[in-house]
Amino acid sequence: MKFETKVGKSHPDKIFNHGYDLVEDLIGNITLADMAFLGAKHRKPTERESKMLNAIMVAICEHGFTPSSISTRLTYLGAPEAVQAAVAAGLLGAGTVYLGAMEYVAEMLQDGTNKHGADNSSSEIASLILNEREDKGLQMPGFGHPIHKPVDPRTVKLFQIAQELGFYKQNSEIINEISRQFNERKGKSITLNAIGAIGAILADMDIDPKVMKSFAVAARAVGLVAHIVEEIESGRKNSVGQKLFDYFEENTEYQS
Amino acid sequence: MKFETKVGKSHPDKIFNHGYDLVEDLIGNITLADMAFLGAKHRKPTERESKMLNAIMVAICEHGFTPSSISTRLTYLGAPEAVQAAVAAGLLGAGTVYLGAMEYVAEMLQDGTNKHGADNSSSEIASLILNEREDKGLQMPGFGHPIHKPVDPRTVKLFQIAQELGFYKQNSEIINEISRQFNERKGKSITLNAIGAIGAILADMDIDPKVMKSFAVAARAVGLVAHIVEEIESGRKNSVGQKLFDYFEENTEYQS
Amino acid sequence: MKFETKVGKSHPDKIFNHGYDLVEDLIGNITLADMAFLGAKHRKPTERESKMLNAIMVAICEHGFTPSSISTRLTYLGAPEAVQAAVAAGLLGAGTVYLGAMEYVAEMLQDGTNKHGADNSSSEIASLILNEREDKGLQMPGFGHPIHKPVDPRTVKLFQIAQELGFYKQNSEIINEISRQFNERKGKSITLNAIGAIGAILADMDIDPKVMKSFAVAARAVGLVAHIVEEIESGRKNSVGQKLFDYFEENTEYQS
Amino acid sequence: MKFETKVGKSHPDKIFNHGYDLVEDLIGNITLADMAFLGAKHRKPTERESKMLNAIMVAICEHGFTPSSISTRLTYLGAPEAVQAAVAAGLLGAGTVYLGAMEYVAEMLQDGTNKHGADNSSSEIASLILNEREDKGLQMPGFGHPIHKPVDPRTVKLFQIAQELGFYKQNSEIINEISRQFNERKGKSITLNAIGAIGAILADMDIDPKVMKSFAVAARAVGLVAHIVEEIESGRKNSVGQKLFDYFEENTEYQS
Repeated sequence: MKFETKVGKSHPDKIFNHGYDLVEDLIGNITLADMAFLGAKHRKPTERESKMLNAIMVAICEHGFTPSSISTRLTYLGAPEAVQAAVAAGLLGAGTVYLGAMEYVAEMLQDGTNKHGADNSSSEIASLILNEREDKGLQMPGFGHPIHKPVDPRTVKLFQIAQELGFYKQNSEIINEISRQFNERKGKSITLNAIGAIGAILADMDIDPKVMKSFAVAARAVGLVAHIVEEIESGRKNSVGQKLFDYFEENTEYQS
Repeated sequence: MKFETKVGKSHPDKIFNHGYDLVEDLIGNITLADMAFLGAKHRKPTERESKMLNAIMVAICEHGFTPSSISTRLTYLGAPEAVQAAVAAGLLGAGTVYLGAMEYVAEMLQDGTNKHGADNSSSEIASLILNEREDKGLQMPGFGHPIHKPVDPRTVKLFQIAQELGFYKQNSEIINEISRQFNERKGKSITLNAIGAIGAILADMDIDPKVMKSFAVAARAVGLVAHIVEEIESGRKNSVGQKLFDYFEENTEYQS
Repeated sequence: MKFETKVGKSHPDKIFNHGYDLVEDLIGNITLADMAFLGAKHRKPTERESKMLNAIMVAICEHGFTPSSISTRLTYLGAPEAVQAAVAAGLLGAGTVYLGAMEYVAEMLQDGTNKHGADNSSSEIASLILNEREDKGLQMPGFGHPIHKPVDPRTVKLFQIAQELGFYKQNSEIINEISRQFNERKGKSITLNAIGAIGAILADMDIDPKVMKSFAVAARAVGLVAHIVEEIESGRKNSVGQKLFDYFEENTEYQS
Repeated sequence: MKFETKVGKSHPDKIFNHGYDLVEDLIGNITLADMAFLGAKHRKPTERESKMLNAIMVAICEHGFTPSSISTRLTYLGAPEAVQAAVAAGLLGAGTVYLGAMEYVAEMLQDGTNKHGADNSSSEIASLILNEREDKGLQMPGFGHPIHKPVDPRTVKLFQIAQELGFYKQNSEIINEISRQFNERKGKSITLNAIGAIGAILADMDIDPKVMKSFAVAARAVGLVAHIVEEIESGRKNSVGQKLFDYFEENTEYQS
């Protein structure tokens, strides 16, 4: 049997990736994030695409103490010899609840445009999407944040960069219209969060929604480096993992 | 109890990372790889450091079909709804056998310099390191490659970039001296592989050896995006995961 | 803050689990599988429940070379020092495609009984469930198998044990009725697979469908031991992981 | 290429595992834990072996709130749709620090017996092992416990069962001699913990030390079921994962 791939192939003196010579074309010429783009689109990003993607991946790679980074630290506590396991443990919670929304935002916007885009303005499409989800009792992905209220500062920044770089297109317009109308309908400010902004911008960059979560997961892996470093630097006894374990020992009530 | 961290903290309108304002200082200003550096050194990299680190992480993020990327594809086959699990599965084999060597190279070079550096040239330190490992019957980490013989093209490129950017320092000198003398002693060419080069260059960038593997693991996570994309694009039936599973079904001999 | 749990608590000379004294009541008195039951139901299983559950978990713990066990072997190849990572990698593909169906079967049966159970026989409920899924164009979870045709031998055995032990109740009846009618409608034999049988029997044991997949995942972890042992016994060079990696090296066609 | 295995093979109406017919010989006849034994020894355990192994795996499958079970709960919080990821995350910390010791205990005992067993009593072998480790400044694996002082109640129980079932042999004798002499030398009681006892007993059952950790990891997977169930039953808002996340939000001090 033969396995076929565009991803990569090694020869004694050459390595190819998606039609590029790794050594001649890629190493030293592109950024790490561009490799994710290359994987998704089978071509190197333009300079503008590279800037936008790096901005997005920087925005979501690190969130302080989250279920993800705490799991990484706890896993490092038990298996300091296996850093890969600590990173993996930190990625495993990237399910539907947190990072999944990026994909749902992009799909919502693209479905709305496919259904209503021919004859309607962005404002009208936004309204129709909101109506439809209200009718079906569906939540709005990309909205709401426990801390960043009423505005997620990353959202503002990312849309500003998208405008500078030419990626503030129809999906970005619609999500911002949805945001405006959603607040109006609810009579209060509901945060358009960074994940919502990124879902729209990546859609405006023609990234397949199904691929978006893998971008987020890869970015998160980079962010977890800082948590492992901090555990190494603290030393076992003063590590967050150990302190948390001790805290549980002292603060657990057993219910028989 | 209080948990302390430099990594990050969120306020309603501000997010801080290692003393930087994420929105003002980082998003749009640095690359994804720089976030790994920030985690390791608690400061943004200089432009030269950023270029070097991106070159290194690009060099190791993708290797075609490896145990790592095959595990990712097999995991995606069973759990396409959980892309994070597919990435995690691909990272879990990044143990001592493949990516671990980076750290061992850096430690070997730093130990050698600590012991012998005061009074010896790089060439003499290289010789002393080789002697010591020969005496103890220890393998040379960073040497040998099943495909890239006699030269790993990434090694050449990475050292060239290191020279241009000013990171070809003592550790790089010593590993190249070790390579030259090792070939001489053995009477044949033994590849100084990319992992060996990177261990030396990262040491010349003052990255703690203990942190190096987490850089490699993070880079690998980015590389796995391409494999997930290819499985998505192939469709289940033609995916590598499914074809491999079928191949096992047809080619397994049961030994009772 | 206090964390509350029924699961377990340690004192210097006593360990409690779900109201039992681990040393006095559990170690030496119950089987490993019973610990899963204890976790799910907060009580020890009866002898009949223990036998049924052990039979079920034995039936699904091992399937030879699957995406799951191949990932375990590939991960072991790269990280033989981290057996936990090899087991974890083998579990990660236990998503919706393979093991998920158990839960969907149980939910389908319970929904059907909730809606139609008051006034209808098992045969009528089966018919209504089939109608409803046909109308909605939904697949039948628990049916079909690439190898075990027309009968999955585990299904026969498990229902036989369920009858002996008194767990062949309404859910088992309905799934077998669905099977009979489904074949009749389709005019051909479609396998009622082991996962379908187990979903029904566990429902007849009053196990919450949401918990069923964790039983399957735990059983699978036990099954992966054999694959790790075989890799250890083969030695690296002759291990399946290494041979598979080599096979890919030689049989990959790069598409530029 | 052909892949060879003893583990298992499926035919339309038969499934074989290690020479047994799964349906005729295993389902309904053996316990889940016996499948781990079958994987390790390529034969079914005797009734005594099965009892001993179940006792051991029950003893180590559950420890309340540990880094392992907390990671599982945090992962479930983010990815409740992917229970396999939650279990995997809980296994990943099973590294050298906690579960690894079992293997080191068994190797220490077997090395000691191989070197000194021909001419020495268990008491003398114990003394020689202690001398050797003292000379080299090595820690004693299997000793010490943060909570169970001066006696780990599981240790007492497991050795009692081992005696009843005929598995209290030379390795068990030596570890208990080491314990006695170690306390004497130190002038205080140092707990011989459950992991130490299990390492010795499994060695007395002729289980390869390299395989022991996979037994422990599999047992742990079963124990994690209870933690997932408790998170499901609590509901998201009252889950330990969510409460812990909230606690971090409120109790993190950012160090700039």
